[in-house]
Amino acid sequence: MTLQEALDTYLPLIEDELRACMTPPANSPPAFFGMMHYHLGWADPQFQPVQIKAGKRLRPLFTLLTCQAAGGDPHDALPAAAAVELVHNFSLIHDDIEDRSDTRRGRTTVWALWGEAQAINAGDAMLTLAHLGLHRLSERGVPPDRVIAALHALDQANLALCRGQHLDLDFESRLEVDADAYMTMIQGKTAALLGCAGQLGAMVASPDRDLTERYRRVGEGLGLAFQIQDDVLGIWGEPDVTGKPVADDIRHRKKSLPVVYVLGRRNDPGAERLRALYAQEELSEGDVADAIAILDASQARPYAEELARYHLETALTELEAARPEPEAGEALREMAHFLIKRAY
Amino acid sequence: MTLQEALDTYLPLIEDELRACMTPPANSPPAFFGMMHYHLGWADPQFQPVQIKAGKRLRPLFTLLTCQAAGGDPHDALPAAAAVELVHNFSLIHDDIEDRSDTRRGRTTVWALWGEAQAINAGDAMLTLAHLGLHRLSERGVPPDRVIAALHALDQANLALCRGQHLDLDFESRLEVDADAYMTMIQGKTAALLGCAGQLGAMVASPDRDLTERYRRVGEGLGLAFQIQDDVLGIWGEPDVTGKPVADDIRHRKKSLPVVYVLGRRNDPGAERLRALYAQEELSEGDVADAIAILDASQARPYAEELARYHLETALTELEAARPEPEAGEALREMAHFLIKRAY
Repeated sequence: MTLQEALDTYLPLIEDELRACMTPPANSPPAFFGMMHYHLGWADPQFQPVQIKAGKRLRPLFTLLTCQAAGGDPHDALPAAAAVELVHNFSLIHDDIEDRSDTRRGRTTVWALWGEAQAINAGDAMLTLAHLGLHRLSERGVPPDRVIAALHALDQANLALCRGQHLDLDFESRLEVDADAYMTMIQGKTAALLGCAGQLGAMVASPDRDLTERYRRVGEGLGLAFQIQDDVLGIWGEPDVTGKPVADDIRHRKKSLPVVYVLGRRNDPGAERLRALYAQEELSEGDVADAIAILDASQARPYAEELARYHLETALTELEAARPEPEAGEALREMAHFLIKRAY
Repeated sequence: MTLQEALDTYLPLIEDELRACMTPPANSPPAFFGMMHYHLGWADPQFQPVQIKAGKRLRPLFTLLTCQAAGGDPHDALPAAAAVELVHNFSLIHDDIEDRSDTRRGRTTVWALWGEAQAINAGDAMLTLAHLGLHRLSERGVPPDRVIAALHALDQANLALCRGQHLDLDFESRLEVDADAYMTMIQGKTAALLGCAGQLGAMVASPDRDLTERYRRVGEGLGLAFQIQDDVLGIWGEPDVTGKPVADDIRHRKKSLPVVYVLGRRNDPGAERLRALYAQEELSEGDVADAIAILDASQARPYAEELARYHLETALTELEAARPEPEAGEALREMAHFLIKRAY
């Protein structure tokens, strides 16, 4: 099965399951679910139905494919797929408040439309609905001990997500960040939930803990590789690939991996100079060029690319060791290479 | 067993269980759990250990007592008690941000110390830890189907809590609020979690759904009666009882039950006048006296007192119908009368 075939087959099922999880109870004031429906691309700001592509739904697709790969019926994993997507979206609603982001996917964010207080509450409600959605596994005949394990795994991942977000917010306020701390941050913020997506899919298919852990590591490795690649592209990526100007992350003084790799060095003139640049309120185009020259001289790019390759290869090795069902295995390999576009 | 005996016996166990739920994993940055420990009264703003009474822990005590009342071992219900208390505290951390409250229980709030972004994230993490804490029921030998039912009930209550908070925030911005809408709001914001506390305690003791629903209604009734009494005291309470000046809620233009009872009336001169007063930016002492005169003339106080009595009696009737184990029954009756101090 190609990735496109998987998308064509599974995305409509995922959307249906998400809508089932997000059906308001009888006593709900319209705006309560309305704000969440807006965020998911199903409503406009007046809560009238629309259909906007809000997100690629790659995490839930990954859950269905790992379920199939582990020998299960992907339909049984739909509640897990929806739960993972709702946790992701809860975190986006809250991140947008925390980062003061006015727009997401070209639309005004929930907090910018309805205020911070209602947006905090909408995120809380969506996290709650993610849990209630996961309980639908019981209706699919998943045995109770596995439903419990799935609920536990989802909250373990969400705790990692919160830990990653804590670190990310913390890093913004200081220059003493090194590559190890950064990797801990993205392990939580990016990799844990994709790991959970893989783990839950396999868990629906099989009680074998070694196997479910393997699929968790597939997702985790892909998450890490993806984030690191994103960091490389944010500095050296071509505008026609990234849709953003070259060195955009430097211009915004983002502490991405190549930057913290250098910032973390002691007694290093390049690190001193980069720290001084990042301590400025704004960077001129000359400053940006200086920063990139420092990163290039410090071999920050090959360091990051090597690390991305390592995590991609770990993910692919774990995938093969799991002996995936061939159709799903093909789609998962293609998804891995789609996520991490460069053949490092 | 008197309420004091129950407090002496159970509060230390509850505190130990809460601490067990809130133990940071090895890879946690100190401030991540530190902010949550601060909120719970276990740490100062520098994350040094302190022991401050932060909250009465009445919800978790209620859980242990309903477990015992339903014939169970209250120790087995400790994870449920802790989970309910953590959900309550998650909601306080977020409410304080949403309401812009600088202090709670005489201490600076989490957001006022560490900023909104970290406080949103700390609340999210505490909600997650509430779930992980509830999973500890499995270690206490609670059967899987009941662990699943408990997890589901907790999220149902939390969704009601979010719905109540949505309505509360919504009410602030408008004057068209009536008593029915208000009751829906406090059913979610105050009563649902206390109902869940009772339900979970009974659930640990017994698989009988009629019984667990009964204990849910005991908690729900007490929650409603308590909130309505609080509304009455906020307007007519003596300062030496409430610790606040007379009519404090009116001075702050709070839309509590006696107020919305009048505001909701159509074609009523008193309602018109009250609406006009509440539309002002500030109320003079003369305005406050006018508002109270309108409420008195509209019989708002006996209306509210009658409703509080009704919900207290419903709770007590449900409690007797559940045939509680005598020791726990005694403590529960005393708790009900302690919560709703007036003998209506």
